[in-house]
Amino acid sequence: MSDNAKLAQEKLDQAVAILDEQGIDAWMVFVRETMLSPDPCLDLILGIDMVWQSAFIITRDNQRIAIVGHHDAENVRAVGGYTNIIPYVEGIRNPLVNTLLNLNPLQLALNYSESDAASDGLGHGLMLLLQRYLADADLVERLVSSESIIGSLRGRKSQAEVKRIREAIVATQGIFHEIGKAIKPGVNEPEIAQHAHELVGKKGLDTAWDQGFCPTVDIGPDSPVGHAGPQAQYAVKPGMLVHVDFGVKRDDYCADLQRVWYVRKDEERSVPEPVKKAFNAARRALLAGFGTIKPGIEGWRVDEVARKTLVEDGYPEYQHAFGHHLGRSAHDGATILGPRWERYGQTPYGIVEAGNVFAIELGVSVEGFGYIGLEENILVTENGAERLSEPQDELWLI
Amino acid sequence: MSDNAKLAQEKLDQAVAILDEQGIDAWMVFVRETMLSPDPCLDLILGIDMVWQSAFIITRDNQRIAIVGHHDAENVRAVGGYTNIIPYVEGIRNPLVNTLLNLNPLQLALNYSESDAASDGLGHGLMLLLQRYLADADLVERLVSSESIIGSLRGRKSQAEVKRIREAIVATQGIFHEIGKAIKPGVNEPEIAQHAHELVGKKGLDTAWDQGFCPTVDIGPDSPVGHAGPQAQYAVKPGMLVHVDFGVKRDDYCADLQRVWYVRKDEERSVPEPVKKAFNAARRALLAGFGTIKPGIEGWRVDEVARKTLVEDGYPEYQHAFGHHLGRSAHDGATILGPRWERYGQTPYGIVEAGNVFAIELGVSVEGFGYIGLEENILVTENGAERLSEPQDELWLI
Repeated sequence: MSDNAKLAQEKLDQAVAILDEQGIDAWMVFVRETMLSPDPCLDLILGIDMVWQSAFIITRDNQRIAIVGHHDAENVRAVGGYTNIIPYVEGIRNPLVNTLLNLNPLQLALNYSESDAASDGLGHGLMLLLQRYLADADLVERLVSSESIIGSLRGRKSQAEVKRIREAIVATQGIFHEIGKAIKPGVNEPEIAQHAHELVGKKGLDTAWDQGFCPTVDIGPDSPVGHAGPQAQYAVKPGMLVHVDFGVKRDDYCADLQRVWYVRKDEERSVPEPVKKAFNAARRALLAGFGTIKPGIEGWRVDEVARKTLVEDGYPEYQHAFGHHLGRSAHDGATILGPRWERYGQTPYGIVEAGNVFAIELGVSVEGFGYIGLEENILVTENGAERLSEPQDELWLI
Repeated sequence: MSDNAKLAQEKLDQAVAILDEQGIDAWMVFVRETMLSPDPCLDLILGIDMVWQSAFIITRDNQRIAIVGHHDAENVRAVGGYTNIIPYVEGIRNPLVNTLLNLNPLQLALNYSESDAASDGLGHGLMLLLQRYLADADLVERLVSSESIIGSLRGRKSQAEVKRIREAIVATQGIFHEIGKAIKPGVNEPEIAQHAHELVGKKGLDTAWDQGFCPTVDIGPDSPVGHAGPQAQYAVKPGMLVHVDFGVKRDDYCADLQRVWYVRKDEERSVPEPVKKAFNAARRALLAGFGTIKPGIEGWRVDEVARKTLVEDGYPEYQHAFGHHLGRSAHDGATILGPRWERYGQTPYGIVEAGNVFAIELGVSVEGFGYIGLEENILVTENGAERLSEPQDELWLI
């Protein structure tokens, strides 16, 4: 069995356990043309693309049913893990309704979610279709969101998953090391990004997110911070901060780190006071948030501690969440360690679980110098959390 | 301006014209975390990923509004094409509702569709959220599916798009040529696929669909046909057919072709009669369908002609659609040239338009020899259709 097939089996076993834990009879993932409309949860439990409408049904009593177009059936069989594969030719309606009537679940959890994009793979139009399929069989009212199932399934990394993330982090740290050697007066943002891309290519890796913004590079005080792409008008000069947000994807799993350098002026013996002070405040706030992470805590409480620590030190609140899951995607959905802002919906109220991997991050702008952003990757353990990345404990000097 | 930005502008201009043509005041694409939940239509009019909830609103009177998280605003500005970019921090609800109340469209077309996966990028959970945002402002009842807008926008290829598809086809044909040279007794399916992947990598291309199934390779009579991946137990022997379904993606645009070889036995001077007969029947049916393609015809009518031609020659109906759009994706959504089966929904009733690019395909199994599948790529012109690929007019012999 391939490593990927093994991983899918591991996740299918986990899914059955989570259904039992949450007292839900059955979970269905309903998709079509996943090349165009991928459902991120399907990567966990299948890992290949489906063409026609397809239903993957996992039950609390360990049935694993795939109802798929006849063209796709052989491929699902090859993945393994599904005990009952039902191919169809003209339409999925009959085999689907019959299967569900046989299973007769009290609740049928489905792949949609208001809060969590990683659990919202079901298109609205496809849902309208499904509702029509199920209407006559009185099954529509049993549908509930599967966000808590997918959140736990995606969030609780297996050992094999953590191993892959560790390897992505090691590779990312290696590239950060190389990037540091390339920073010198005159070098601009796209040149640094280009250098990173060459290293990624040479090592046969992918960037962890859209290459146009991975890495993001911020040189000096005028470069706009955020998810912006590198811009050529910003070049390194002595006395500037250089900030890079970057990660690689390796064997389908991501790292996501931020590192920051200070480029000394000739006469400078030490880092200017405002830069030093800002770095220490950012680091203190990051550590404060890190220190509160443990199984059972709600996400927003972690963010609040980090946010307050930074504000107490006289810096403005960062305009994003403190932490996000990390896995197959750099933003791996579900619970965030973030403020209870409208745009985050229910996700800050999610519960941190052992086995979760988070990227934790925050930053501070230093007037006249640039941006200090710190980001580390951590694993939630039974009692707290451990670092997966080698943390940046001091400014790196050029 | 980059080629990609130019392409997005071209498509935005097209979108305004399509809104006017269809008499719809405004079209909105609503998305979030597109790295996890990509909306295929956003590639056409933006081409970068969004993180927070984002609304792209195009109006019939040529307003192009983007309401996006403040982190993403700079990137949208860099793409160009949007005349009004509204960044937000805490939540999209207020700026979104206010913008829509100001525009006051009679109908607001939205990115969901029952029939067309390429027009169904809006997650069901995200739709529930949107409905709550819009409920107080009495805007919910103005929402309609934008499938006819996206279908035309995606389907009517601009000259720049056709040029990219042509280049993908040329590259694909080159690789087919190389594959042909590698077919010989003893070679198995994964070896042929591996060879194709090496050529794709060497030329800096991507496969047009999931690499595990691109190419699909079918050697001999026992290999299961469909979207199945290559399997090592099927190896070339004299007297077998070798069938390959393959395409590359080049500059974001795809080709999708099928080719078939016959491996002669030593003593054979000509192709066995049943193989020759089946090839000719498949080719005749493909040409019959091709001959009916012109602007204004409904998709299913094209399929019907090809299907009937094949059946008249004594072969069973193929178990799929005759044709599908080809573009950024190998299955590029919208109208299909396919039978009126339940699973195809409304898509066979779509109207063929000038500028459409289709992959047309069908096949026949030949007992004891293997599978003959033919697939060509064509462009719909003002009066009919022209071939983009160099058609396979006879069996290729090994």
